[in-house]
Parts: sequence; C-alpha cells; structure tokens
Amino acid sequence: MITIKSRSHDYTVEEFESLAAALATAGGGARTCYLVDQVFAGHYQEVLKASIPADGTIYIEATEPQKSLEAMTPLFLEILKRSLKRDGVLVVIGGGVLQDIGCFIASVLFRGLRWELVPTTLLAQADSCIGSKSSINVGPYKNQVGTFYPPHRVLLTPQVLGTLPWDEIRSGLGEVIKLQLLAGEEGFRELMRDLQGVKGHPELLLKWVHRSLEVKKPYIETDEFDRGIRNLLNYGHTFGHAFESATHYGIPHGIGVVLGMLAATSVSAQLGLAKPEHFQELKGLLAPWHEPYATVLRNAPREEIFQAIRHDKKNTGQAVNCILTRGFARMEKAPIPFAEQLVPAVNFFIDRELAGS
Amino acid sequence: MITIKSRSHDYTVEEFESLAAALATAGGGARTCYLVDQVFAGHYQEVLKASIPADGTIYIEATEPQKSLEAMTPLFLEILKRSLKRDGVLVVIGGGVLQDIGCFIASVLFRGLRWELVPTTLLAQADSCIGSKSSINVGPYKNQVGTFYPPHRVLLTPQVLGTLPWDEIRSGLGEVIKLQLLAGEEGFRELMRDLQGVKGHPELLLKWVHRSLEVKKPYIETDEFDRGIRNLLNYGHTFGHAFESATHYGIPHGIGVVLGMLAATSVSAQLGLAKPEHFQELKGLLAPWHEPYATVLRNAPREEIFQAIRHDKKNTGQAVNCILTRGFARMEKAPIPFAEQLVPAVNFFIDRELAGS
Repeated sequence: MITIKSRSHDYTVEEFESLAAALATAGGGARTCYLVDQVFAGHYQEVLKASIPADGTIYIEATEPQKSLEAMTPLFLEILKRSLKRDGVLVVIGGGVLQDIGCFIASVLFRGLRWELVPTTLLAQADSCIGSKSSINVGPYKNQVGTFYPPHRVLLTPQVLGTLPWDEIRSGLGEVIKLQLLAGEEGFRELMRDLQGVKGHPELLLKWVHRSLEVKKPYIETDEFDRGIRNLLNYGHTFGHAFESATHYGIPHGIGVVLGMLAATSVSAQLGLAKPEHFQELKGLLAPWHEPYATVLRNAPREEIFQAIRHDKKNTGQAVNCILTRGFARMEKAPIPFAEQLVPAVNFFIDRELAGS
Repeated sequence: MITIKSRSHDYTVEEFESLAAALATAGGGARTCYLVDQVFAGHYQEVLKASIPADGTIYIEATEPQKSLEAMTPLFLEILKRSLKRDGVLVVIGGGVLQDIGCFIASVLFRGLRWELVPTTLLAQADSCIGSKSSINVGPYKNQVGTFYPPHRVLLTPQVLGTLPWDEIRSGLGEVIKLQLLAGEEGFRELMRDLQGVKGHPELLLKWVHRSLEVKKPYIETDEFDRGIRNLLNYGHTFGHAFESATHYGIPHGIGVVLGMLAATSVSAQLGLAKPEHFQELKGLLAPWHEPYATVLRNAPREEIFQAIRHDKKNTGQAVNCILTRGFARMEKAPIPFAEQLVPAVNFFIDRELAGS
C-alpha cells in the first residue's frame, strides 16, 4: 500500500488480487453510486453484476465529447436522482476519461464528495491515478477546466492488465518510460530490458506500475498544484501533444510522449544542454516505439504542430516553456524563444534527425 | 483592511471611497475579464464605461436559472474567447448570484484562476463576500454543486450601498441581525437601536458591514469547509429557507432568516433549551421585520414547509439537524426527531406564537 499526501486529504493506493476483491471493499458501506466505462463493463459483465447494484450504476462512454462541461449536467442529474447525499461515495471504474469525469463531479458535488477509483488501463494505473488533477473540455477548448481533488482510495488490480489490448498498453508505457527517464539511468535501462518481453506478461506490467507510482509520488506531494517541480512530469508532453493533434491522433498517446521526449532531447542537444550522444542513444533504444510513426510525423502539417506548441496552455508569454534535459534524471524547465530557436530546432529534429532513423 | 485566512490562499477585504477608486485597483495590471450584474451596470454606466474595457466585459442576469451548471458553458466560452490565460484575473461585480457564478468559474477554469470581487449588495458586502463558498444549481436541484474558493481580494465601497432599493437592504439586514445574535447581547441591542434610523443612512450600513465581517471571520477561518462550528452560521436558515420556498418567495430572504431565527428560538424554548422570555423579547424587538409577513407564512402550505425542512441538504439521516439556541451567543447544533418533535414544535410556532403577534 502507498499513501499519498494531498492538501485535500491523504489517500491510499491499495492492491487487490482481482476486480471482485477490489469491488468488495469499494464504498465502505455508505450509499454508493458507480460510474463505469461502458466498454470495460462489457468485458467484465459477470464480475460487475455480482459486485455492484445495477440501479446504482451509470455507464459512461469514454470519449472526449463525454469529458466536457456540456456533457456533465445529465451525469449530475443521474447521480442526484439516485439520492446520493453528502455522506455517500462515488466509485469510478475506468481509465483516464472516466477519472477526469469522476474527479470533476466528486470535487464539486456537495462541494466535495468522497470518491474511490478503480483504474482499468495501464496509463491510469501507472500514472494518472495519483496526482489529483481533472481535465475537462468546454466547447472547442481542451482540458481548460478542472480541479485538484484526489480519490480517497485507489484500488489497483493486475487482473485488468491481463485483458488490455496492446494499443492501450503501449499508451501507458509511454508514461512509464518517461517516469524512468526522470528517475535515472539504472531504472531506465532495466525497463528497456523488461519491455522486450512485456507482451503477454502482465506481472511485468504490474512491476512497472509500482515503480512508476514510486517515481511520481514525490513530485505530486511536493508540488500538488503544478507550479514548480511537478512541471517536469510534462517532459515530452508539449511536443507530444502537438504531434498527436497535428496528426489527428494518427500518433497514439504513448508514441506521442516517446516522440515528444525525443524531440525535447534533440532540442536540448541542439541548444547545447545535452550531449548529442545521449539523443542518439535514446533514439536507438526507443526505436521500436517511434520508428513505425516517423513517416506519419513527417507528413503532418508542420504549421499545425507549431500552432499546437504555441497554444499549449502552459505558455503565458512570448517564449514557449519547454521541459528540456541535460541527461538521465536531469530535466529542467526553460523558456525558449519560439520563432528564433524552437521552430528551427523542431524542424531539424523532424526533417533530419528523425528522418535518419 | 481585513485579512482572511483560507486553505486556498489568504485574502483581503479592502475599502474604497468610490466604485471608480475600487475598479482602478482591480486586476492589478494583468489581463482581466469582468463579469458584471447587468442591472447594477445599468445604474453605474458612466463609472463602468470609464473604468473597465467594454470588450473584456460580460454582463450577466442575476437570476437562479443563470446560476446553474447548464448556463455555465456559454460563460466559460465567452471568457476563453477573450483569450484569458492562467495568469489572468477574473473581476466579478455584483451580488450573491454573480459571486456564485464567478467563484465557481474561477475555481475550475485553468484549475483555479485569480479572481477579485466587488460586492454590490448589502448581503454580499456584510456576509457572503467572505467564506469562499459557491453554490450552483443543476436541473431542479438547488445549490447542490459548488466549490470552496475565496476571491483573492474583496473590494468594498459604501458608494453602492447608497443606491440600493430597500428590499435589497432588508435582505442583507436579516444576515446582519443573525450575526449579531451569534455575537452577543450587547452588539445585538446596539444594532436594534441603529436599525430604527437606518433608512437613508448608508454610513450606518457600512458600520454594520464591518461589524458583520468581524463576527463571521473567526467562524470561517476555524472551519472553512463547514464541518463544525461554521454550521452555526446556518442559524435560522433551515427554517427560513423552508418558509421562503413554501411561500414561493413571497417571504423575502432577509425576512425568511428573521422568521427562521424566531422559529428556532421558539422550538428551543419548547424543548426547554431557551427561556420562553428570550423568545418573547426577540419577537418583540424583531416585530417590524416579521409582523408584516406573519399572515403570508400562516397561509403557506404546511406540507411544503415540512418537505423543505426534511430535504434540506444538511440532513444526512432520519433526524433533522437544527441550529437551536440557549440565548444570545449560545447557539448549538442538535438533531431533532422530525415527526415526533420538530413538526409539532414548528406548527405551534406558526399557529400559536406567531399568530399572537
């Protein structure tokens, strides 16, 4: 069990043998309402039927439009209709989208409701389940609305990792790789070795779920509200999100993060922060992740990439705040002049360095 | 200047000679978006035109439907369209409804945006401007959604008190009276004397704005999240809200609070907590407030009153949590069995004690 400190309330990450064992402890006897990812529910019908009451369960499509302020009203109404009161509990079963929706609702319903999270994807288990953020869309604006409100308990079970499609696993592994790059060389190299045999070995995934949460924990405890050191967890994300959106998600999230970290390392090397050999080594080690997508990225409209980088919500002035690197575990935040330095450096990465892979 | 401690951030209540002087300091030079009560804006067109930019201003109707989750999306979009970023400021100019809307938006936009409040009603100046709560409706459910997120600055000006209609002033005075009953006998008697000459004397109102904030400050600092001592600020409210809603707001808020406090005192006397003479004295002193509305209350559908009391969101079990009194400054929370004790006591108050006034 891990305990995480938060300004709202400390919370625990607990491990259970099976989904049924986890759900047997959910809600703690209080009146409980369940928000469940409907695709996940399809895979675990029997367990869910036996573990949670049908009339207290709301199934949710885990899509971007559903994760919007506009789509919240019917969910609040569904929950209130079930007579949940301020001493009730909201139990959320799903991945990142369900977590965003559940966290937002729990943080504002009755001005803060107890909630528990059963993360069902690798990304949610290894990364997003701790850290307490929710991100909600409004109209065309992505992730501009949200709250800091951790679950009161996180219930992990390796059972659900065994049934995940490879795409889902790969999406989570991008963040797992990022966290080990932040942690240090030794762990990163161990991860690289393990990843070669990860397909079909959920016990290896579970090992890296725990290792990831251990790396993330001090960042979010020291800087829950993301005003300082926690910014480093965005390593690879400004570039990665831009690559994802400019390819209209032809580059999946996990790959986007890997490509984003490579871009950050290349820019760091071009600016004299990192050694060129560090970039070359990472490019080689991460080749299975980025190589199949190099062409997709090269063909993406370049102006859309730069527009996305420029409009990243982390920017507040003229320069773009980037998380760059001086090597393993030596990331740092730096404002980089957009037109003068960042654009040519990213172009060089995409056209020359990535092209050569 | 008063400084209030809050878990989010400490904040100040500052006084300014005029609205123009207050607005000259608003936003502090950052990119600023203004949410303004449109009725108030009608009264202060010249000052607003000279003080705030038209293209950064959004006018809002201060109504219950506007204070709903459903009505929030267009407001978020209007603000985001004006390119407000996380280093911007939201300035809210209005009474309680504007404060609820502004507080909710500021607490979730960019996961927490700096905001400043210019309260324009007596109720907002003397009571709601500190304490950090927002209350938002969703569908038919009133005030079930909200946040704790105080403004970063409260800008008071007596100028706006001079132009308030009497109904608005009376609404605020209900809370002013409540706060002095909580504070002690001496202040309450001084207030009763001042109130006899309050019409047309905004300087007397300003005095009681400050006195009210001084009384409220320790409650909200000790118990920001309303889990203990702050509950006492609900004195008169469970009954008062029920009287207001059962008369379809034929009883205005300030009167509702006064009638609610009288009901609480009567129930307290019937249960042997307070002396009957205490109730009789308050009934006499507060006669100008409640007498004109005694008939309205007696004619209200009794079952609607009891339904509202029973469904008050502060109740979590079978009994109803009431704030009762043992006398001046001796309020306490007590769970009262609904059918056995509360219903007959409230009936006795309305039919026999109030009828005799």
